[in-house]
Amino acid sequence: MKIKNITVHDIRFPTSLQNLGTDAVHVDCDYSATYVKIYTEDPKLNGTGISFTIGKGNELCVSALAHFTPLFLGRTVSEVEAEMASLWKQCTNHSQLRWVGPEKGVIHLAVASLFNGLWDLVSKFHNKPLWQYILDLGDEEFLQKLTFSYLDDVISEEEALRIIRGKRVQLNASRQDILENGFPCYTTAAGWLGYSDEKMTNLTNEYLKQGWTHFKVKVGQDIDRDIKRCALIRELIGCENKLMVDANQIWSVNESIENINLLKEFDLYFVEEPTHPDDILGFKKIKNSINDVKLATGEMCQNRILFKQFIEHKALDFLQIDSCRLASISEIIPILLIASKFDIPVIAHAGGVGLCEYVQHLNIINKCLITNNSTFMSEYADSCAEHLVNPAKIANGSYITPKHPGYSAIIKDSSIKEFEYPNGNYWKTYVH
Amino acid sequence: MKIKNITVHDIRFPTSLQNLGTDAVHVDCDYSATYVKIYTEDPKLNGTGISFTIGKGNELCVSALAHFTPLFLGRTVSEVEAEMASLWKQCTNHSQLRWVGPEKGVIHLAVASLFNGLWDLVSKFHNKPLWQYILDLGDEEFLQKLTFSYLDDVISEEEALRIIRGKRVQLNASRQDILENGFPCYTTAAGWLGYSDEKMTNLTNEYLKQGWTHFKVKVGQDIDRDIKRCALIRELIGCENKLMVDANQIWSVNESIENINLLKEFDLYFVEEPTHPDDILGFKKIKNSINDVKLATGEMCQNRILFKQFIEHKALDFLQIDSCRLASISEIIPILLIASKFDIPVIAHAGGVGLCEYVQHLNIINKCLITNNSTFMSEYADSCAEHLVNPAKIANGSYITPKHPGYSAIIKDSSIKEFEYPNGNYWKTYVH
Repeated sequence: MKIKNITVHDIRFPTSLQNLGTDAVHVDCDYSATYVKIYTEDPKLNGTGISFTIGKGNELCVSALAHFTPLFLGRTVSEVEAEMASLWKQCTNHSQLRWVGPEKGVIHLAVASLFNGLWDLVSKFHNKPLWQYILDLGDEEFLQKLTFSYLDDVISEEEALRIIRGKRVQLNASRQDILENGFPCYTTAAGWLGYSDEKMTNLTNEYLKQGWTHFKVKVGQDIDRDIKRCALIRELIGCENKLMVDANQIWSVNESIENINLLKEFDLYFVEEPTHPDDILGFKKIKNSINDVKLATGEMCQNRILFKQFIEHKALDFLQIDSCRLASISEIIPILLIASKFDIPVIAHAGGVGLCEYVQHLNIINKCLITNNSTFMSEYADSCAEHLVNPAKIANGSYITPKHPGYSAIIKDSSIKEFEYPNGNYWKTYVH
Repeated sequence: MKIKNITVHDIRFPTSLQNLGTDAVHVDCDYSATYVKIYTEDPKLNGTGISFTIGKGNELCVSALAHFTPLFLGRTVSEVEAEMASLWKQCTNHSQLRWVGPEKGVIHLAVASLFNGLWDLVSKFHNKPLWQYILDLGDEEFLQKLTFSYLDDVISEEEALRIIRGKRVQLNASRQDILENGFPCYTTAAGWLGYSDEKMTNLTNEYLKQGWTHFKVKVGQDIDRDIKRCALIRELIGCENKLMVDANQIWSVNESIENINLLKEFDLYFVEEPTHPDDILGFKKIKNSINDVKLATGEMCQNRILFKQFIEHKALDFLQIDSCRLASISEIIPILLIASKFDIPVIAHAGGVGLCEYVQHLNIINKCLITNNSTFMSEYADSCAEHLVNPAKIANGSYITPKHPGYSAIIKDSSIKEFEYPNGNYWKTYVH
């Protein structure tokens, strides 16, 4: 079964019109996707991959893919499956393109969308949900498909194998638990920075009624307003529910320390991205100066090399894997294995376009094969669900495990037609 | 004097044909430039800025600039000069584009080329070489043009001011020294990995005759061959000259330790980029396990936030600033100030396209206004000099201080016509 064509689409949804996704630094997000479609000789078998961006710059990720897609044309799905690790390295370590990376930014996002699509294709080829495909692989076979480059000072492949083998013992029970009870999540959807107090209040009350127990609020534009917003939400949700705040990198290290110490009275479950996502030592300094307040980061963490340092240096308390910024599960699983070794809880980043659909699979794989940590939580925001063929389903504040084959993030053909940039119907007639 | 047009050019020189620039991971470098030309109302006044890349991907940096250039059209040069810091922040912190960065990779390289061009324009407006323009600025005025965001845990603006004021006392003497004696450099040009032993021998002997005293050799594809190459060069240059090796990131942390311990018998002045450029803690681990061998890195270090960590964590011994990867001297000077505070010697990365021309200015500014360290050294490789209007000049292994107005990196019109990609004469007729 050969790959016969790969198309790449620049899809942009005009979410900035509703202030969706707004925070301290991202004030006008148009949720977007670099969307890869991989066609095979069988019209019923194709793969789709997403990398999530927020508008401008999406066209750069789309353009970058022109360098990578030819490598895959004419290969069989079985070849791709067998050579996943070396193909991944050929892309991420491309001798010219790595200069404008390496393994970060535009180039890495492009590789992520392609490999998200390849993993989707391979699991569809086996007619299984991605999580099921992975759980059914032999342990060595699974690890051979991943990248462990630049990680040997923190985890060896033997350690990785031991972790997975240790988890195998309980696999049936943990899988059964997820299939029956789902995977718990929290919502960000009530607390975008562009929302009025009234809108926040209404949404929070609605989410409380739906059974949500964890609520995240954006902070960082004005500390007095941040305090008021935290006080408002804390009053609405009571002491028994969890409150998290997210500063989206707006503070320096010193400002983070000052502001977190002002906000900690609201009993924060964690503070997300207080400062620049590259600042491992800065996060550690902040942690050392805010008593027992916990820090979370990861949605802008560029690759496994940054994550291994964050984890080993104990510079974060919650690991927020981004399924589209990291170059697919080829890179994500090794990071989850490092987190398991250091017993760091994983709370995957979601929302955007396709992230919720991807993290469902990551959560199951992590719980069943990798982590021994007892915190099970993931982000959820229902943004753009209307544009997806199989949007994530939630019941009682938990993800319901997907049963369809593949990695779940497929954009509807009608949405592509409408929102492809700049020639889709919506953008063609959009008045700037 | 208003900016009336900005053009962006994708320039690629086919240097891979001569194995120029080849190393352990970059096996086919076509030295390239994202080249920005800023035109004003005065036909005699324009700015030019370069970001150096090595071929594919250059078109992405060129495309990214379409988002930034409109911000500058119609502004006067004086406005740009006065608002340099806020304009820099508007670009690097663009609310949508930062998602595909932030401050790294394609986007940051694009911003670098633009701001290299703006600094060039401003110094030409004052009819001074960039280094002279900077030395003539008032200390506060100078600092106000730079970015100190995310640096306050490592250096305050007051500390920065104290460093510069302290250097002012000796400024006339240090400037005079550079004007008379130049600025020392080392050459990489003899040791590219693609060169045969014979070619290396001939080139090394030639450079020895020209008065060079520091020689760098690429290593990392095969440790036995690396040992032979080091032995060969060490024999040619004797004990009195310095030998450095550069692994260009090919080793993991554990491999670095193993291989450096095998190479250290050759009395290495430093080992450059043993492992991944993002691995601050990894570099530190390597340093801790190779006795007194010194490490250098920086040409792939993405921004000031990585550099501040490398410096404060004592994870490097030599700081190799890249004038095109960092977003212009707006970001470079604060890093040099941090290096000064921690007394880390700076050995700027050069070669490629335009890097030698830029670092001449950085070296003078650093020696006259910033560092108290006694190591003065910079890289030099004469690659692509034939395409530049004012290529760096060398005498007795030292850069001769440039006297013409601006930041010195101007590509000849004839070279643009020939090597613009894909429609220049060379590429139009190139047979792949």
